[in-house]
Amino acid sequence: MRNIKLTICYLGTNYHGFQVQSNGITICEAVQDAIERVLGKRYDVKGCSRTDAGVHANRYCLNFRAETEMPLWSIKKALNAVLPDDIAVRCAEDVPEDFHARYCCKGKRYVYKIWNSDAKNPFLQGLAYHYFRTIDVVQAQAVCNLFVGTHDFAAFCGGKNTQENTVRTITACGICRSGDLVEFYVEGDGFLYNMVRILVGTVIAVSENRLNLQDIPRIMEQGVRRVECKTMSACGLYLDEVFYE
Amino acid sequence: MRNIKLTICYLGTNYHGFQVQSNGITICEAVQDAIERVLGKRYDVKGCSRTDAGVHANRYCLNFRAETEMPLWSIKKALNAVLPDDIAVRCAEDVPEDFHARYCCKGKRYVYKIWNSDAKNPFLQGLAYHYFRTIDVVQAQAVCNLFVGTHDFAAFCGGKNTQENTVRTITACGICRSGDLVEFYVEGDGFLYNMVRILVGTVIAVSENRLNLQDIPRIMEQGVRRVECKTMSACGLYLDEVFYE
Repeated sequence: MRNIKLTICYLGTNYHGFQVQSNGITICEAVQDAIERVLGKRYDVKGCSRTDAGVHANRYCLNFRAETEMPLWSIKKALNAVLPDDIAVRCAEDVPEDFHARYCCKGKRYVYKIWNSDAKNPFLQGLAYHYFRTIDVVQAQAVCNLFVGTHDFAAFCGGKNTQENTVRTITACGICRSGDLVEFYVEGDGFLYNMVRILVGTVIAVSENRLNLQDIPRIMEQGVRRVECKTMSACGLYLDEVFYE
Repeated sequence: MRNIKLTICYLGTNYHGFQVQSNGITICEAVQDAIERVLGKRYDVKGCSRTDAGVHANRYCLNFRAETEMPLWSIKKALNAVLPDDIAVRCAEDVPEDFHARYCCKGKRYVYKIWNSDAKNPFLQGLAYHYFRTIDVVQAQAVCNLFVGTHDFAAFCGGKNTQENTVRTITACGICRSGDLVEFYVEGDGFLYNMVRILVGTVIAVSENRLNLQDIPRIMEQGVRRVECKTMSACGLYLDEVFYE
């Protein structure tokens, strides 16, 4: 029995996230369907994380155990041929028997894209969040710096969070501008439900003077979600990389 | 009566080109609908050119005559609010009474985008043509150079061409690579039916050694369409700019 790891990228617009759900097609089902077409049998797929409906991925990792002699390059090629246009396999690898895409994951990086202009951009529909007011990236970077480190992020997760331990370590967080496109990135050992989208919402709240920089450490300490820290739209969010040992 | 010029951009994926047609929704209709919602009356819209189904535009120009006191900034803002997400007004201007978006047009620039990689790219679906074999841009530029000048392009237009005079002047033509994205551009006083897509098809034919560089001037002289010069997919084509005096 082989244990095969796939690194995939996808446009999440037309999917109800990764994890199989009853209310719509998911990335996981699309991948399982493709594997079944290529290998002739339906295998269970383990994803590195649930991602929300509409969220994209540049590099999402998953693994499945399968009995096949097919070489990796051929698996990759065949899967790409049968997968829909909005999902692609970037890499197929043989991994040790005990590798599990979720449990072995040591960290992740997310990117949030903002089209920061008063001009509509038909070409970034569903690929970036459209935000009109100019973001001061120097000020925004100061907010990002406050997220770095080991903190209790209870105030920065959605109501549906099921994790009891809300302490996470953020190893890097920043924001950069390239013309009218602003990219927020955050790297850490793990993320709570909706956490990245709420961290971006917090950056925006400071940018709009609805919160001060000084409020952030206090909010973090209090551990209570604030209405100012909105959950940003899924369409700007990309799972950018998944780290393993 | 004012004569108003709009510069718009659009993602053409979901439209049957610009010109009103019986078989599907067009950009022209969507713009007329929006103008009607904003100004309360349906006005006739003159576009700078027909564009094919699925073709995009970075800057497409049109004009319409209307009785309204509404300031330009307000027309732009209101139109953007009611237009679908895949069409945006970049600029609204008052122009002289005799301005006509099509008849006053002195030239145009088109861009053709090619995702030149063996990797599938879910984020460029419908935005660039996916082509696997590596394009040698130095060789491709040599093909582009042959298009520049005043030539008879009868061999480089589609069967549905209705223009009797097939002589056109190309003022600039080139190709450049940025990573895996290759962009072909062509600028000229006018273009025949499917001409840009066939010029790109000719570049590809030389790239695949189905034609030699030396064949191009002979094909041009003979004025007969060659099977090697395919019409490339509409999804990579962008009307990039329209020139007026």
